[in-house]
Amino acid sequence: MFFHDKGLQYRAKPDRPDPLFAAKLQEVLGGQWGEMTVAIGYLFQGWNCRAPGKYRDMLMDIGTEELAHVEMLATMIARLLEGAPINMRDAAVAEHPALAAVMGGMNPQHAIVSGLGATPTNSVGVPWNAGYVGASGNLLADFRYNVTAESQGRLQVCRLYNMTDDNGVRDMLSFMIARDTMHQNQWLAAIEELEADGLEETPVPSSFPQELERSENAYQFWNCSAGTESREGRWAKGEAPDGKGTFEYVAEPRPLADAPTPPPADPRLYGTGGE
Amino acid sequence: MFFHDKGLQYRAKPDRPDPLFAAKLQEVLGGQWGEMTVAIGYLFQGWNCRAPGKYRDMLMDIGTEELAHVEMLATMIARLLEGAPINMRDAAVAEHPALAAVMGGMNPQHAIVSGLGATPTNSVGVPWNAGYVGASGNLLADFRYNVTAESQGRLQVCRLYNMTDDNGVRDMLSFMIARDTMHQNQWLAAIEELEADGLEETPVPSSFPQELERSENAYQFWNCSAGTESREGRWAKGEAPDGKGTFEYVAEPRPLADAPTPPPADPRLYGTGGE
Amino acid sequence: MFFHDKGLQYRAKPDRPDPLFAAKLQEVLGGQWGEMTVAIGYLFQGWNCRAPGKYRDMLMDIGTEELAHVEMLATMIARLLEGAPINMRDAAVAEHPALAAVMGGMNPQHAIVSGLGATPTNSVGVPWNAGYVGASGNLLADFRYNVTAESQGRLQVCRLYNMTDDNGVRDMLSFMIARDTMHQNQWLAAIEELEADGLEETPVPSSFPQELERSENAYQFWNCSAGTESREGRWAKGEAPDGKGTFEYVAEPRPLADAPTPPPADPRLYGTGGE
Amino acid sequence: MFFHDKGLQYRAKPDRPDPLFAAKLQEVLGGQWGEMTVAIGYLFQGWNCRAPGKYRDMLMDIGTEELAHVEMLATMIARLLEGAPINMRDAAVAEHPALAAVMGGMNPQHAIVSGLGATPTNSVGVPWNAGYVGASGNLLADFRYNVTAESQGRLQVCRLYNMTDDNGVRDMLSFMIARDTMHQNQWLAAIEELEADGLEETPVPSSFPQELERSENAYQFWNCSAGTESREGRWAKGEAPDGKGTFEYVAEPRPLADAPTPPPADPRLYGTGGE
Amino acid sequence: MFFHDKGLQYRAKPDRPDPLFAAKLQEVLGGQWGEMTVAIGYLFQGWNCRAPGKYRDMLMDIGTEELAHVEMLATMIARLLEGAPINMRDAAVAEHPALAAVMGGMNPQHAIVSGLGATPTNSVGVPWNAGYVGASGNLLADFRYNVTAESQGRLQVCRLYNMTDDNGVRDMLSFMIARDTMHQNQWLAAIEELEADGLEETPVPSSFPQELERSENAYQFWNCSAGTESREGRWAKGEAPDGKGTFEYVAEPRPLADAPTPPPADPRLYGTGGE
Amino acid sequence: MFFHDKGLQYRAKPDRPDPLFAAKLQEVLGGQWGEMTVAIGYLFQGWNCRAPGKYRDMLMDIGTEELAHVEMLATMIARLLEGAPINMRDAAVAEHPALAAVMGGMNPQHAIVSGLGATPTNSVGVPWNAGYVGASGNLLADFRYNVTAESQGRLQVCRLYNMTDDNGVRDMLSFMIARDTMHQNQWLAAIEELEADGLEETPVPSSFPQELERSENAYQFWNCSAGTESREGRWAKGEAPDGKGTFEYVAEPRPLADAPTPPPADPRLYGTGGE
Repeated sequence: MFFHDKGLQYRAKPDRPDPLFAAKLQEVLGGQWGEMTVAIGYLFQGWNCRAPGKYRDMLMDIGTEELAHVEMLATMIARLLEGAPINMRDAAVAEHPALAAVMGGMNPQHAIVSGLGATPTNSVGVPWNAGYVGASGNLLADFRYNVTAESQGRLQVCRLYNMTDDNGVRDMLSFMIARDTMHQNQWLAAIEELEADGLEETPVPSSFPQELERSENAYQFWNCSAGTESREGRWAKGEAPDGKGTFEYVAEPRPLADAPTPPPADPRLYGTGGE
Repeated sequence: MFFHDKGLQYRAKPDRPDPLFAAKLQEVLGGQWGEMTVAIGYLFQGWNCRAPGKYRDMLMDIGTEELAHVEMLATMIARLLEGAPINMRDAAVAEHPALAAVMGGMNPQHAIVSGLGATPTNSVGVPWNAGYVGASGNLLADFRYNVTAESQGRLQVCRLYNMTDDNGVRDMLSFMIARDTMHQNQWLAAIEELEADGLEETPVPSSFPQELERSENAYQFWNCSAGTESREGRWAKGEAPDGKGTFEYVAEPRPLADAPTPPPADPRLYGTGGE
Repeated sequence: MFFHDKGLQYRAKPDRPDPLFAAKLQEVLGGQWGEMTVAIGYLFQGWNCRAPGKYRDMLMDIGTEELAHVEMLATMIARLLEGAPINMRDAAVAEHPALAAVMGGMNPQHAIVSGLGATPTNSVGVPWNAGYVGASGNLLADFRYNVTAESQGRLQVCRLYNMTDDNGVRDMLSFMIARDTMHQNQWLAAIEELEADGLEETPVPSSFPQELERSENAYQFWNCSAGTESREGRWAKGEAPDGKGTFEYVAEPRPLADAPTPPPADPRLYGTGGE
Repeated sequence: MFFHDKGLQYRAKPDRPDPLFAAKLQEVLGGQWGEMTVAIGYLFQGWNCRAPGKYRDMLMDIGTEELAHVEMLATMIARLLEGAPINMRDAAVAEHPALAAVMGGMNPQHAIVSGLGATPTNSVGVPWNAGYVGASGNLLADFRYNVTAESQGRLQVCRLYNMTDDNGVRDMLSFMIARDTMHQNQWLAAIEELEADGLEETPVPSSFPQELERSENAYQFWNCSAGTESREGRWAKGEAPDGKGTFEYVAEPRPLADAPTPPPADPRLYGTGGE
Repeated sequence: MFFHDKGLQYRAKPDRPDPLFAAKLQEVLGGQWGEMTVAIGYLFQGWNCRAPGKYRDMLMDIGTEELAHVEMLATMIARLLEGAPINMRDAAVAEHPALAAVMGGMNPQHAIVSGLGATPTNSVGVPWNAGYVGASGNLLADFRYNVTAESQGRLQVCRLYNMTDDNGVRDMLSFMIARDTMHQNQWLAAIEELEADGLEETPVPSSFPQELERSENAYQFWNCSAGTESREGRWAKGEAPDGKGTFEYVAEPRPLADAPTPPPADPRLYGTGGE
Repeated sequence: MFFHDKGLQYRAKPDRPDPLFAAKLQEVLGGQWGEMTVAIGYLFQGWNCRAPGKYRDMLMDIGTEELAHVEMLATMIARLLEGAPINMRDAAVAEHPALAAVMGGMNPQHAIVSGLGATPTNSVGVPWNAGYVGASGNLLADFRYNVTAESQGRLQVCRLYNMTDDNGVRDMLSFMIARDTMHQNQWLAAIEELEADGLEETPVPSSFPQELERSENAYQFWNCSAGTESREGRWAKGEAPDGKGTFEYVAEPRPLADAPTPPPADPRLYGTGGE
């Protein structure tokens, strides 16, 4: 069960409105790698977690924190939208021609749909959807997802930092960047912990019996694009990171099986090619 | 540019048709973590890659290989669908009541839409969409995505392995599992290489100036869910994996900012709450 | 069965083209609360209606009228797009710099996809989808949806009215606003009628036996966000609108059940946390 | 900012596993009218609220409570999935043929994707998306949406109650039904309060000047479907609910404008019909 | 503007309920090639049509007819759902075990969401979306789309015909099949007419100046898949159907351009690979 | 199985960056009729093809070629994005005011998400999805889809050609236009071949017994929109293109069946209208 405190985790106050930047900031609220994704993803991972308590507790801690990030962003976006020009013939537009470009670029739904509030959508207005979420029940698979999400997320926030000069916006972004630093570290540490606890290791899932996979192909690099520059990388030689095999470079790969012979089509379904 | 060889990378021949399993196998073809995701994701990463040639070449190698995995799965699914019962009153259904359950569970689009062929959809029939793909231009962020995709993908294939007894299906899955072993290792090795080449490290993006983030919050664990079991984990104490800070456990976190005071609504947009 | 008359329900002729406004107007054609939603929603409600004839007839009346609204909007949008600049180097753009902003803001699909025609999408180009539609078979639930749709729809049209100065556009919008006034009133009247006919009342569904719900929680307000300003509202004291209970304010709510104890994960599915 | 308590708002413990019902229960977790919709919808309404504090506080109270409902459902679904048959050839399936039907009907993603955990999707596996959410900044429009959501939601939960005999499941549903009773009442009371506070009334938005709408059409019922049974309803005669007009029944409606004359197509865009 | 007659275009009465077939029939109502697609597609083509009146009139004729097909299907589906088993423990299920399979296979939303009514979704429950629609403003491009839609649609209806033995269902399907026969013929005739009227021909768009395309590649068949069986087809030799070129078979195609050299990444965006 | 050559099928080098045009060009990469659609569509048609080898080989040839088109477009888009302005306060923007309009119109995801790379989305940022693909197992139905896709695709590329003056972009588009000329011709030729081989003809599917369709309605044109201009077309008189019937014009069509009588609603599902 959840409780809410109306204080913001961190201040979210721009120096001045900027409806064009408001549209862009939506990406880290409601985009693929935005705060909705991590909040909902971590909570589902926590609810479905069957591992020892520290993992479940930790997942609920951070999933709950991420809800506060959604809140900060929603607050910031609403403030960036204050006083947005909504009519090309507004006096303000006539006097400040640069506003025309803003009006071209701002998200029209911020005026028409939400009345100058944030929306659960990304920077081009596509609604957030749960296809972005990863929650598999296998914690190593999911923690890797989480490291990714924090990496993609921090990357996007850093890019946005460079896309504005507003000190208030940058101040909030500097907090979000710091939290993403923490969370990248946290998930990397959690991966160490999982392995130290003997719960999971590479390759995920580690308890699938190695003798059941086709091991002659388990450490081969197949060179399917002309040129062999890929031979130079760590991934093509030496011991594999899982310590269970040695990389082999297949410079000229060939199909291992013949072309399939398709059976006749089912006449009841009117496919082409029945005899 | 691409060329195609009609041989299959590996054989894809079930011992017998099984339309219910065909529906399930769609998950690893056209689901969030299916082969379409990695094929299209790696190719976009390769096309947008501005790093040294070995990285770009490697991305194109594996993106191209993944297309062959889509092909194997499409072939297997078509064969699993052969002779599927399509009418509840077929004699076969009457004689083998278990077929009724198969008909309840098979994907009706496999008969109505594709005529007993594979479809670019997941195990519940949702069409594949590009919102699943990660391709950011930052290779560490993307390689972490790729490790995740191979982990989630291998996990799903291993689960499917346990959901069938068909030796032909299991044979193909054992090959796919082996390739996913390779690819998990490959991306982990690629991450090592990126770091060894000095191109990127934790936290992503590593070239964002550390002094610009709000560093007092960059290594804090906020305990937002009641209970402090999360204090026991590696993520709450000691040096952070990036070597740039020390974890701190905030047992009773509080908001850092006051509740925001919303401004009056814009009367032209008929929001509630103007003065 | 349907018949079409080529006359428009109301005139749809702008004073001058405005491709930027055309993009915005798409919201009330193909957005969540646009005319496609109400047309298709009311028709499905009508087709599935099992109530006395006046309800079904009324649903078909208004569902059919809404198709005419889609038509008016499509006509208006096509006219707003006439002569749109499609190339940044057009002489017109060079001579009238404000056109550049229009080109930045117009929907590129209006040129590339539809050749200056309306599209079944919203103001940011997201295709209309049937997830917007509400049609449950319970008329009170659905009429409440319909009041909502007419309220959100009229709100959006009024906002759009303020976002243009074109008299021809405003003339058509004034008709749509009037029809939405009617339809809000109509659905409110229909709710009165349903209740007067003894068919349904609050809480929907009213025929679910009251003794089967957990009545001690059926009129409690749970104060889950810090602060008790919510205690001041009508929703926290006095008789509830359904006349079947009295509001109670729970100032300091607590969970009614203990934390769940997750069972061990299924080893066949490689979840983390087996015993 | 949010805090989490691991206790459940109400117990969520089935008498026995039922993977088929788990699939169905997803509708009220991640469907159009499920708990994710109201949680996220109310929170966005709260964050964007510019009305007096009791409204904002109340929105945050209930939005936060709804997160606990998502949690209860996720817990229940995970428990319903325990020990699910995942292989048609399991001994259990052979001995209890009814299990075959369960396997046909259970959601395969519950095994393949989430490892017997809940997913943020509906009863047919479609991912939740933010296109379900209504949050306009106009509180009457939004409270009407909220009454609708609680009506559709309670209706679905009551239906699900009739679709199972499990006492543990029914116990939890009886709590959810009670809360939905409260919430329907709450939003109806909030509508009363809004009107009593003079903030908004029918037609939404009420501050759009009545003289600007085309008032001769603002209270007309257009009979667009053959037959005049619709004349018998409250919506076709007498004073309209807003008290600002009288219903008029237009028995034989005709278009008010001529068929539009389409202009020639733009030759640069290769439309058909240039002169 | 539209008018509705409550008579059905053709009778839609099954001999007996069949909830499993109801789920399947949704494909031709709300699937990619279902009646919603052609109804909405043809109406948008008509509204955006700038060609002589017979084309626009014809488009409105058939678009309007297709609405009646949606109506027939919605009616049939509601009747197929009558008395559907909704609880696995219903006496009816116990006595007729085959019902269990029906319950596994029926769409749970038909009970939970629509209360035994049709839904605007396909056979696996995915909501209809406007991304299925083709309407470009170029009539030859669109009429080709229309021939396709009628071909895919008739194919699906014929498949469904073979998937049931219900005489009432088959009767309605025989009408729909006949109308699709007409409509395939109609669009083929319309293509003849367009060409006879000199409005458009192959290649679409025919008014793009032939000298501006790179004509040396305009009639070449590139053999990109190993093996040259494709050389045997009509598409590889002789005059092309447009009469403007001769097919040429390129047996061993090679890239025409070198590998691109990617520029350094933008340091402000933290891409990998800046120098 | 596939192999990749790093050479581009054709050069993809703009004369200068143009981030606004990059956004538009995405339509033919990741839109409904973009290269991803035809690549994936043709490959699935090929993998599911059960017809003689020349058809399957041809499908794999062209599906594989289309992957090279995706690659060319991705390369071109990345180059058009080079040096894009990302901050409204960049000196470049201040000095060249037209850049502001570019910034309003460029896709913000090209900076935030992909770091100046192409994305698998359309011109308004909607992710590509597999609902665009047609692959039925019936080759005539599918080849008609393919003619359509090449027609819509060539139309869009020709429109884009007129929307830029960049010679490098136009050079690449002239190649794509030529290939689309080929592919329109190719699919028309393939349709001839199918018919010549006796595999399929109009109406699709041609092997459905003509006596089972309701033949009295199989060649009727129903005039459902007022006015009889549609009588003038080829589709309303004379022999139908399939040679199996004669067109008949039904000037005043009437429903063939009475209005349906809805049964009472199921009380367990709380529909409105039980007796």
